Order: sequence, then C-alpha cells, then structure tokens
Amino acid sequence: MTRQPRPEDKFSFGLWTVGWNAVDPFGTATRPVLDPWEYTAKLAELGAWGITFHDNDVFDFAATDAERHDRVMKVKEAADAAGVVIEMVTTNTFTHPVFKDGGLTNNDRSIRRFGLRKVLRNVDLAAELGATTFVMWGGREGAEYDSSKDLNAAFDRYKEGLDTVAGYIKSKGYDLKIGLEPKPNEPRGDIFLPTVGHALALIAELDNGDVVGLNPETGHEQMAGLNYTHALAQALNAGKLFHIDLNGQSGLKYDQDKAFGHGDLVSAFFTVDLIENGFPCGGPRYEGPRHFDYKPSRTEGMEGVWESASANMEMYIRLAEKAKAFREDPATAELLKAASVYELGEPTLAEGESVEDFLADASVYEDFDADAKGAREYHFVELYQQAMRHLIG
Amino acid sequence: MTRQPRPEDKFSFGLWTVGWNAVDPFGTATRPVLDPWEYTAKLAELGAWGITFHDNDVFDFAATDAERHDRVMKVKEAADAAGVVIEMVTTNTFTHPVFKDGGLTNNDRSIRRFGLRKVLRNVDLAAELGATTFVMWGGREGAEYDSSKDLNAAFDRYKEGLDTVAGYIKSKGYDLKIGLEPKPNEPRGDIFLPTVGHALALIAELDNGDVVGLNPETGHEQMAGLNYTHALAQALNAGKLFHIDLNGQSGLKYDQDKAFGHGDLVSAFFTVDLIENGFPCGGPRYEGPRHFDYKPSRTEGMEGVWESASANMEMYIRLAEKAKAFREDPATAELLKAASVYELGEPTLAEGESVEDFLADASVYEDFDADAKGAREYHFVELYQQAMRHLIG
Amino acid sequence: MTRQPRPEDKFSFGLWTVGWNAVDPFGTATRPVLDPWEYTAKLAELGAWGITFHDNDVFDFAATDAERHDRVMKVKEAADAAGVVIEMVTTNTFTHPVFKDGGLTNNDRSIRRFGLRKVLRNVDLAAELGATTFVMWGGREGAEYDSSKDLNAAFDRYKEGLDTVAGYIKSKGYDLKIGLEPKPNEPRGDIFLPTVGHALALIAELDNGDVVGLNPETGHEQMAGLNYTHALAQALNAGKLFHIDLNGQSGLKYDQDKAFGHGDLVSAFFTVDLIENGFPCGGPRYEGPRHFDYKPSRTEGMEGVWESASANMEMYIRLAEKAKAFREDPATAELLKAASVYELGEPTLAEGESVEDFLADASVYEDFDADAKGAREYHFVELYQQAMRHLIG
Amino acid sequence: MTRQPRPEDKFSFGLWTVGWNAVDPFGTATRPVLDPWEYTAKLAELGAWGITFHDNDVFDFAATDAERHDRVMKVKEAADAAGVVIEMVTTNTFTHPVFKDGGLTNNDRSIRRFGLRKVLRNVDLAAELGATTFVMWGGREGAEYDSSKDLNAAFDRYKEGLDTVAGYIKSKGYDLKIGLEPKPNEPRGDIFLPTVGHALALIAELDNGDVVGLNPETGHEQMAGLNYTHALAQALNAGKLFHIDLNGQSGLKYDQDKAFGHGDLVSAFFTVDLIENGFPCGGPRYEGPRHFDYKPSRTEGMEGVWESASANMEMYIRLAEKAKAFREDPATAELLKAASVYELGEPTLAEGESVEDFLADASVYEDFDADAKGAREYHFVELYQQAMRHLIG
Repeated sequence: MTRQPRPEDKFSFGLWTVGWNAVDPFGTATRPVLDPWEYTAKLAELGAWGITFHDNDVFDFAATDAERHDRVMKVKEAADAAGVVIEMVTTNTFTHPVFKDGGLTNNDRSIRRFGLRKVLRNVDLAAELGATTFVMWGGREGAEYDSSKDLNAAFDRYKEGLDTVAGYIKSKGYDLKIGLEPKPNEPRGDIFLPTVGHALALIAELDNGDVVGLNPETGHEQMAGLNYTHALAQALNAGKLFHIDLNGQSGLKYDQDKAFGHGDLVSAFFTVDLIENGFPCGGPRYEGPRHFDYKPSRTEGMEGVWESASANMEMYIRLAEKAKAFREDPATAELLKAASVYELGEPTLAEGESVEDFLADASVYEDFDADAKGAREYHFVELYQQAMRHLIG
Repeated sequence: MTRQPRPEDKFSFGLWTVGWNAVDPFGTATRPVLDPWEYTAKLAELGAWGITFHDNDVFDFAATDAERHDRVMKVKEAADAAGVVIEMVTTNTFTHPVFKDGGLTNNDRSIRRFGLRKVLRNVDLAAELGATTFVMWGGREGAEYDSSKDLNAAFDRYKEGLDTVAGYIKSKGYDLKIGLEPKPNEPRGDIFLPTVGHALALIAELDNGDVVGLNPETGHEQMAGLNYTHALAQALNAGKLFHIDLNGQSGLKYDQDKAFGHGDLVSAFFTVDLIENGFPCGGPRYEGPRHFDYKPSRTEGMEGVWESASANMEMYIRLAEKAKAFREDPATAELLKAASVYELGEPTLAEGESVEDFLADASVYEDFDADAKGAREYHFVELYQQAMRHLIG
Repeated sequence: MTRQPRPEDKFSFGLWTVGWNAVDPFGTATRPVLDPWEYTAKLAELGAWGITFHDNDVFDFAATDAERHDRVMKVKEAADAAGVVIEMVTTNTFTHPVFKDGGLTNNDRSIRRFGLRKVLRNVDLAAELGATTFVMWGGREGAEYDSSKDLNAAFDRYKEGLDTVAGYIKSKGYDLKIGLEPKPNEPRGDIFLPTVGHALALIAELDNGDVVGLNPETGHEQMAGLNYTHALAQALNAGKLFHIDLNGQSGLKYDQDKAFGHGDLVSAFFTVDLIENGFPCGGPRYEGPRHFDYKPSRTEGMEGVWESASANMEMYIRLAEKAKAFREDPATAELLKAASVYELGEPTLAEGESVEDFLADASVYEDFDADAKGAREYHFVELYQQAMRHLIG
Repeated sequence: MTRQPRPEDKFSFGLWTVGWNAVDPFGTATRPVLDPWEYTAKLAELGAWGITFHDNDVFDFAATDAERHDRVMKVKEAADAAGVVIEMVTTNTFTHPVFKDGGLTNNDRSIRRFGLRKVLRNVDLAAELGATTFVMWGGREGAEYDSSKDLNAAFDRYKEGLDTVAGYIKSKGYDLKIGLEPKPNEPRGDIFLPTVGHALALIAELDNGDVVGLNPETGHEQMAGLNYTHALAQALNAGKLFHIDLNGQSGLKYDQDKAFGHGDLVSAFFTVDLIENGFPCGGPRYEGPRHFDYKPSRTEGMEGVWESASANMEMYIRLAEKAKAFREDPATAELLKAASVYELGEPTLAEGESVEDFLADASVYEDFDADAKGAREYHFVELYQQAMRHLIG
C-alpha cells in the first residue's frame, strides 16, 4: 500500500461526485442519495482536504431561502467539524428544463436574465463560505443544430454574462476567481467554449478578464482528442490555470468521469508530473487544489462509491511518487539534455539581438547545414521509455 | 448545371492542391508533377480568381537564389497572364528532415533560428508578390511523447517566433497579415495550437498580435470533432478571421482534404451561409478569399485532378444559392423568430441597467416562473428541417 | 413540400422515440409522458405504417400480469384502430438496476437467468401481437474496466443466451426473427458486439443462427467512425439484414439519436439509395420496415416532438426521390461504367477457370503493364459530384 | 533494468518496421534505408526470435525473378545465420499505383487478377521459407466516396479472392494459415473489413475459411475507438486468433504505429495479461508470435530506431511480469470472486435443464427479487485499482 492522503495534498471532491445516484441515459438510479453533509463527513474521513458543490447539490432548485440557508449551514458545519475546506462553489445552470437552451446564451432573454441572477446569487454564497474559486461550466450553452443560434450574438452574450459576474465579484471585493470549464459536447451537440483554447480566447476579450481563468477537466479535453497536459501548459503559460478537474476518460465517447488515472494512465502520469514537478526549465506553477470531478461507475454500490473516491487519491499519490523519482533520476536529466529539452528554454534570438543582426548572421541560414541537422538524434523514444521504466518499474 | 465561377467569387487554390502527386503513407505517386506555372494557368482556366503557394511548391528547398527568382517569376508571369491574384504565400517548415521536431518550437535552437529565417525570407517574397495574407501552419510544432518538450518553453518560443515575424512585417510596412492555421494532429501526435481556440488564445498574448489572425481549415477543426462554423464565428467575433481554408473531411481520421462539400455537406452549407449571408442579427463579416486547401484523391488521374478542383467551386456556388434562398424565405424568418434567434442579439442587461437595478428586479428571479419557461417551444428541429428543405428541395 | 407518407413506405417508430421525456445525464425531464396508446394514435396520424416497443415502454417493470395485459391490449387496440402494424417488439434489459452489469452476460448467474426469462416472456408477447422481428440490443452487455469480465465466458454466455432464445422461437414455430443491434459504447464503456461486424461474427457461431440477424442503427455504427451503408451492405451480403434503425448522429460523441438525415446527410442519402435502389449490379435487397429510432432533442416541446417525428419521414421521402433520379440519370450510368463499378460485379476468375489455368495465363501477370494500369482514371470524384448534383440540385 | 528478450518470448518484427525511412504525408525521409538482411541481423542481435516481411520489403515491385531470388536468399541466409525464424510473409498490394483502388476488390478486373497472382506468388514464397502465417492486409480495399463501389460485389470479390488463396494453400498442402488484418481507414476513407468483427464475419462465409483467421493490430482497432483486448477475446472465442500485431496508438487519429505500450498503456497491460495468463476461467489461448508492427517515430535517427525496437520488447516483458504478479496475487482472486468473474464461466442454464424446466422455475423470475439484486456490489473499481497497484506499484 501507498501512504494515506494528507491535507497538504489538497485533495478535494465535488459533492456531486460521490453523490451521483447513477441515473444514466438508459438507466434509473442504482444507489441511494445521502444528505450532502453525510458526503462531506465521509470524504473528510477518506482523506479529502476540501469539498466543492453546485447550489443544487445542497438545496433544491425550488428551495425557499430558509431551506437554502438551513442546508448550506449544515454542510458548512459538517465541513468545519471535519476540518475540510469548501474551496469552490458553482451554480447549476443545466439540470432544470428552463436551461434546456442554456443560461447565459439562451435564445430567450428572460431566461438569460434568470440564469445570470442564479449565478450572481451563488457568487455571494461562494464568497460567504470562503470559497476561492467559482467554477462556471456552461454545459447547456451550445446547439445541436447549426441554424438555431446567432453565433456572434451567442459569443457576445457569453462575454456579457461573464463580464457581469466578474465585474460583480470585483465590485464586491470578493477574494474569488472564476474558473471556466470547457467541454466539447454532451449534453449539447456542440458546446460553446469546447476546449481550453476557446475559453482562454474568450477570456482575453473580457473587460474583467483578470479574475477569469480556467478549470480544465481531464476527460473534457480528451473528448476532443486533445492532450490534457498540453492544455494545462497553455493555461499556465497564459497565467490562467486557476483550478483543475481531474478524472478519467477512455477515448472519444460519452463523458465517462472515471476515477483519475483510470482513463489514460500515462497522460495522468505526465499531468501529475507537471503539477508536482513543474516544467523542466521552470516557469509558472499550479498551486491550487487537486480537485476530482469523477463519477463512481453505475455498477458500483455504496462500497464502490467510497472505493472509487479513494482510488482517485491513491492514483494521484502513486503517480506523484513515480513522477518525482523520474525527474530526480540523473539518467532522466541526461536524456532531457540529449533531447535538447532544456535548450527550448533558451530564447531563439540572442539577448539584444535585433532582427537586422539576425538577418545578417550567415551562420543562421546561408551557412547552415540543414541536411546534417536533419539527421540529428533526439532520443524522444528513449526518454519516454525512461519515463515508462519509472512508471511501471 | 449551375453557373460558372466568376472573379467576384474570389475562389483561390493552393498550388500544392492540384499539385499533389498522391504519395501517401502507404503508397507512391500516382500522378505526374507539372510545373507550378502550369497549375496556375489551368486553375485560372477553371475559374479561379487567385492562387497561393508555399515557397517549396515553386522552388526546391536547396534552390539557389537565381533558381528561386527564376521560378517565382515564372509563376508571377503566369498569374499575371491569366489574370489571377497571388493572394497568399506561406513557408514550408515541415517537409525537410531538419524540421522533424518543428521550426519555431524545435528543441534545437539552431533549427529554430534557421526556421525563423526561412519564414522571414518568404515574408519578403509574399510582400513583393502583393500577397495580403501570410499563412503559418505549424504542422511540425508538437510532440508524440509527453516527455519530449518543455511545454511552457514551447509556448514562449512560439510567441517569440510569431512576434518576431509580425514585428518584422510591421517594421517593413508590409500590407500583410499573418493567418495561423490550427490542426490537432498529423503529422505530429499532438500539434501545438490544435484548434482555432488555442490559436486565438495565443494571439491574444502577442505583442504584435494586431497583424496576426486565423486561417481555419474545415477538416482540421473536424479532426477534433469540432464544429467548423462555430470556429469561424468565434474568430469573427474576435475580429480575427483573416483567411479560410475550405475542404472536406469525413469524420475523425487522417487528414482527408477532400473537395469542399464532399465531407460533411450540411456543415459546409452552414459555413457558406455564414460567409455569404452573415449572422442573422448582423455583425462582423468575412470578406476574404474563398480558398480551397484540398487534395485530389489518390485514385484520381489528371482528369480527376481538374474535375475535383472544379467540384470545390461548383459545390460552393450551389450551396451559396441554397443558403441565399433559405435566408430570404419568409418562412425562415418566422421560424428564426419562433426560435428566439433574433432575441439572442439583444443584450441581457437593458441599456443603462446597473447590476444593482438588475438584482433588485424581482421579475427577473423571484417572480420568474421557471417551470413555465422550461416548457417553452424553440422549434429548433423545425427550423433545421426548413434548412434541409432548401438544401435538398 | 414533398408528398405525405404512405403505408407502402413502411415507416415505423418506436414508442420510446416520441415517448422520450428528455431526461439526460445532466438534466431532468422537459416533456410530459403520454400513454403509449396516445403515441400510437398520433404516430398513425402523422403517417406511420407501424409501431414498435420495449415491454417497459408499455407497462412497468414491476407490473402485475393483469396490468401488463391491460396496457398491451390498449396499445394493440389503438394500433388496430389506427391501422398500424406492431412490427417489432423488444425487451428492456438495461433500465432497471438489476441489469447494471448486463442481462445475458451479467457476471451474476441469477441475473442472467432472470434476464433470459424476461426476454423469453416478451418473445411470446411479440409473437402474440404478430410482430415479425424481435430486436435484442445488449446495451448493458459490456464493461468499463478490462479486469471486470472473463471475456471468453462473456461470449460463451452471449451465445448461450441467443441460442436459447432463438431455439425457443423455433420450437414454438413463431414467425419471428431476432435482430441484434450493435453499439460500440454508452451506456457501457465498451459494449460487446460493438459493430455490425462483431454481431455477424457471433451469429455465425450460433446453433440457431438461422433466425438471428441484424438490426443496425445509423448512429451506432457512426459512433465507431464506421460507414453505415457499408455495414448494411455487409449484412445484406451475408443474408442477415433483418431490420434497420434509422436516425442521425453528428460525429464521434454521445449517442445523439437525431432525426434521420439530420446527422450525416450524404451518408443518409446513400443509405436510402441502397435501400430503395439496391446495388448497381443487383443482389440482395432489404424489404423490411423503415424504422426510426430517434429522440426528439431535449430543447423541443410536444410540438417539436411531432415536428421531429415527421422530419424523419420527410427526409426519407426526399432522399428517396433524389436517389431515384440519381440512379435513373443516364449520366450516372455512364459514370458508373467509367468508374468500372459494374465490372466489380464480374467474378475475378472466369467461369470454369481453374487456379492452374489462372496461374498459367501470362497476360494476367507476366505481361501485365502495371504502370500503365496504375495511371488509369476512375472518375470517382466526378461520380460523387454527379450524386451531389442530384442531392442538392 | 528488466531481463533481456529470449527466444521463448517469440518476439518478432516486420522488416518494414525498423526499415521505415520516415516519409510521411507532409515530409520526406529522415533516415537511410539499409538492406533487409542488415535489419534481420540487427533485430536478432536485439533479441528478436523471428522476422516477417512483405515481398517488396525485400525486392522491388519490378524485380526480375533472379533479383527476387537473390535478395530473398540473402535474407534467408541472414536469418539462418542469426538464428531467427521467418515466421510470416505477406504481399504488398497497396504501395504501387496499380493498387490505388485495391487489389482483390479493385473495380478493374484485370487489376484484381494481377493482384491475386501477386498474392499467390508470395504464398509459394511463404511456404518455401517455412513461414506459418500469411497475413493479408487489404489496406487499399475500400473507398472514399459512397458511390464508387458496388458494395455487395466488393464483398463477393473479397470472398472470391480469399477463397482462391485459401483453396490454393490447401491444395498445395502448405502448412500455412491466412491472417486477415482489419483496419477502419487510412489509406482509404473507409476500408472494407474495418474491424476484427467484420473480418470474422466474412471468414464465416468462406468455403475455405478453416485456414483463414485474424491478425488483429492494436492500433487499428483503437482507430475505431474499440477495445483491442475485447477483439482478441472474440477472435480467440471463435478459434481464429492466428497472429497478432502489437503496437501503440494514442487515440483517434492517423495510424501512429508507436512502440507497443507507448500508446494506451493499461490496455497493453490487459492485452499482455490475456496473452500470457489466459482467461480467468480458462479457455482458448494464443500461442503464436508476439509480433510488433510499429514505426520508429520520424524524429528518431538510427539510434532511435534500435532504441524503439528494443522498447517494444522491454515493455512486453515488463507488462508480462506485472500481469503475472497481478494474477497470482490472492487478493486478486478474492476480488475476481467478489466481482463474480468466475461465475460468468458457469452456463446460464443448468446442465440438462430444458427450456421448459427453466420456464417453470419460479425462483428464476416470479420469486426473484430484482430490486435487491440491483443493489449488489460488483467491486469493479476496486478490482481495477488492484490491477493498477500491480502495474504501477
């Protein structure tokens, strides 16, 4: 066995993860639903440092203010009692039929207004509970049919909505950042902001984009066939990796939300390597929670729920140990050097080199032996095999 | 038959399209290679308004300056003689072995420097020939193995390279814009800037990003399972749709580069509808060339090359006619209204409405009947069926 | 407008299609549920010739025998009154939690036995109602985790179950054939019998395989990136195309179940062309129902339900008209000839030609000019363009 | 380090693997080409037990009989000298332009005849060299355009071709079996026999199918999003797993042919577990070569070629060790029992139980408590986590 989870691991879970009752498009619930404070206590017991939730994970869509307050307080108390942090709060703008065409980009303006209010209401709640991240997953913002949206207007409305929320956060002085969560499809045929790239691009056009960043989810990027670790890196490079959703996905299919490491294991290894050890040449680091957004498979009973919750943390810990050893192995450093990985950290132009200087330097182009350089070895496969030796050695 | 192509259609072709000799990963050439000026003349004859090329479509990688000049001039003369525009020029940084790990993000600094010089050299050529777009497809910028790059450094180098090229264009006063061409994979396992979103995001961080925009290719977005028309719309919304590459792809597989409309026909219809008719509520328009970046299938001989080149234009013209009729049909307008498509053009907040006003408006949230609104009809399927009636009616 | 559906079109619908209340993995019901006899009457009114259902579309999993009989009879009466045929009946072995690891291949033997009994019970019902096809979709037969099944045992149990059901049908003398419905994934991570090919292969090993064939669904094959028309062709070639499920899917993602023709339109065109016009050189034909297995999108209200139901039939009729014109056009026949399509109908060996004769014929190999033949034209793109002219002309 | 490869590992390599000069659709060769006997010697030195080749890996398409004989003999001598077996020989019917529309299913009958002769010629060679498997990969049998083939005729011709070859093998008394290699696409848009299932189905209809089985390739099944281990299991269950092609693929994209284990590592683990340890309840076993069909990535020089060749074997050995420990661990057996995996090995009907008995047994259905059974635990996630503990522990 590996070691137990510790608070400094910063493992957190959505209440909706262990709380999923296993309704799927072809089947009814296979598990009972506990109260949110029960999940809170149990997650703490398993080793979680933090919890997160959507408003409607804790209270009903139609709850009165009193019910809302009462249930939120019970979660808060359970969290406090168990010593876990409520690190992120988010709003559900996808379950109720009113959001069937989205919240912020619904064609129906009255619904957009309602959705925006629902979001703002939970921004207050997030701040009140001390959460530092407010995730926004626009899972219903999208379309199945190319004729059904004015796409330019949709992006305008998306920006208007985000700017309103971000501006509100700033005007209130909340210590809260928004984390957008991209996804290519499901439940909509094509979701707006399908990948980390699209979300970063939209943020760049916001007036209040300084408090808006990313909450990339492993499986969501993989549902577009993209490399999750590359996505994290581009978000880090842009200073926008605010939160992460770790889980597992096995290829291009419906959103599986398996436990972290139970999808593409090697990709998970390199994700953990990046989070724990940073880039080889240094640079921006992710310091936030290791947040799991997974679903216990529908075949599992309540024992399986807890086993799978623990599996996320155990996988992370094991991969972190392997990644540490891989990076500390002198043979790795040698191979990174042979592969010129560190050399990528050097600017292409020399310090102070002007374009004129550069153009005038015959060694760069005129006297360069491209054929000889084309034959050079990179040892990429050997380096990867070195990683595999650590991973499964 | 439909009408012939006209100059005002602004149809253009890469010389490498009809010039592809049909070598593929499992087969040798099935077609002869003509001289680039021969393709130029023939494309003009078929109705093209413009042509485009990579440096090495016209002259060899190892060509002397004299050879280079001679061959470029022959293409220029052929273009002038035929009355076609050289609207875009680009640099090949992917065919020669020296670029096997990329140009701008090659781990090897000397290769990055060489690649950058090769690019700058062709920026001059592009300007000299009067091209208005300089496409940069970083097909070799990427990796197969997660360990083989410092990803943060890779993004830094990519930005450095782009900023250098863009800065050079500006310093020279060239009337030239850069169009980045994203692609998720092939020939690399994971290409940096895999989608339109990722490229838009990177541009937003450039110092000289004002002259850098997008050249999205139909099939490339579809290779990530993404909606090409959505990609065009986000680029338009960001003011960054500088050029387009139209072609056809049939699902998630190798890059097929079929003729435009010979992949996902309905998606092509809505792409043309956007280009020709704009967004329903108005907004930014694309006014550039209708550029085809396709490959005549390997089964085709030279007759098939010309037939397939013409097919691109014929498909575009036919789809444009259908799209026009669809948008002009009063029944379409009625359905757009029933679907609240125009309503998405209205800001969510009223003019002058402050967040305080908004929060205080009980009709928005407290008195809102979400259940009633959740039952509303959108008629999205009926609207789509209306489009189908025009497309295949 | 195109013509109305007619009985000879043999259009049929599952009651679960229009009856879907739009619960999805991220949202609750957006539509009310009517009684099955109400759907029956309405489908007839829209032009359907037949209906189909799972047992639990009509009566609850836990219904008493009396309730079961009462509700089935009400559907039967509604069908008779409306003049529609109950052409297919199937058993739900996927919704109830007991089937969370499958029916016929559940690791738990008591559940396999229960599942098999549930199936046999509905075989009797199907026969009693005069259905001619009994579909078996093993959507829960599969796994998310490679360790969770003995795969050889799973195939043995699948065969045992199918042989038991098929043997029972034969022993009873029912005029009923089984149609297996493959699907690659969802709701399981990997479903056994993921494609038409895998199902055909399993059938070939059954003792009672003569009454077991295929019910291929458009979207299911496309979820594996495969060509649906190719799948129908291989099933026809094997004499096993017993039933079809027509719908629409837009690429590799969750199971969308759009209306037929609202996914990949051109593939739908060629599917209809095959069904209506057969293979160019003749051969086996499909004569069964044109059965739609789609879901009205969750954005749609009850009006949208009926609009989308009609859209399936309208699309089919339109495509059939286009396909007929395409095939009757003399230009098509000429191009089929130029492409040597008819020549594929000729056996490769001559009648009576022995392998010895063949090996001795120098014109075949020794004197064959491969280079010359390698340069021949096939005009595949021109032929396809000809199809496009008919489709969108 | 792990142990060195041994002859009893039965590792074999195609000469085309290390022999690939790294031409890809966007780039020219990055590596020199050695003579086939040089690859033979080097593979033996690295630890290979066997080699395999296509005719044109050894001699040119246009080679004279004398050249052919000379070069084949040199390979044979090198193999004998190095103590490696030529275990499989295959025919290239995809590289030369004459095969651009396929060999056995080319629309052009004269090409089909030529292709069939080329195949038969190499069947003789395979037998002469003592190979026991003759692989047939029909990579060019397929289409990009749905109109370009008579699909029924294509399947008829495919069967005619296979039956002719299989019949010839039998008539000659060769100790040789055919292994069909399915692939969904690339180089054709849709290849006939896209998956193991489709190939098994076609074999079932052959007259001489007894000597025809499968040669499934890891990446090919994964290019259709399918589970390779499931494919091996269905082929084993059908008695048709004659040969295997191991390699690595990272998701749905172009055919990557990475080293084995360098794609989906966990899937590779379970593949090795099946090959080395068989099904949990026993059953058919694969005893043939562990054949690697991979390509050294284009970034690699000749050092990388040998490093990557070795990586295949090292990964296999490491995974085999892990799988053995996983299966021998008593905790695994307990979890397999808790998951009822062994119970799947028990027939659903009792020995001698008739359908009448079964229908009459009220405990099976009438008295069965489905709700209680629906709540049972399977511990699938725990079992998988147990596998992970062994894999990365």
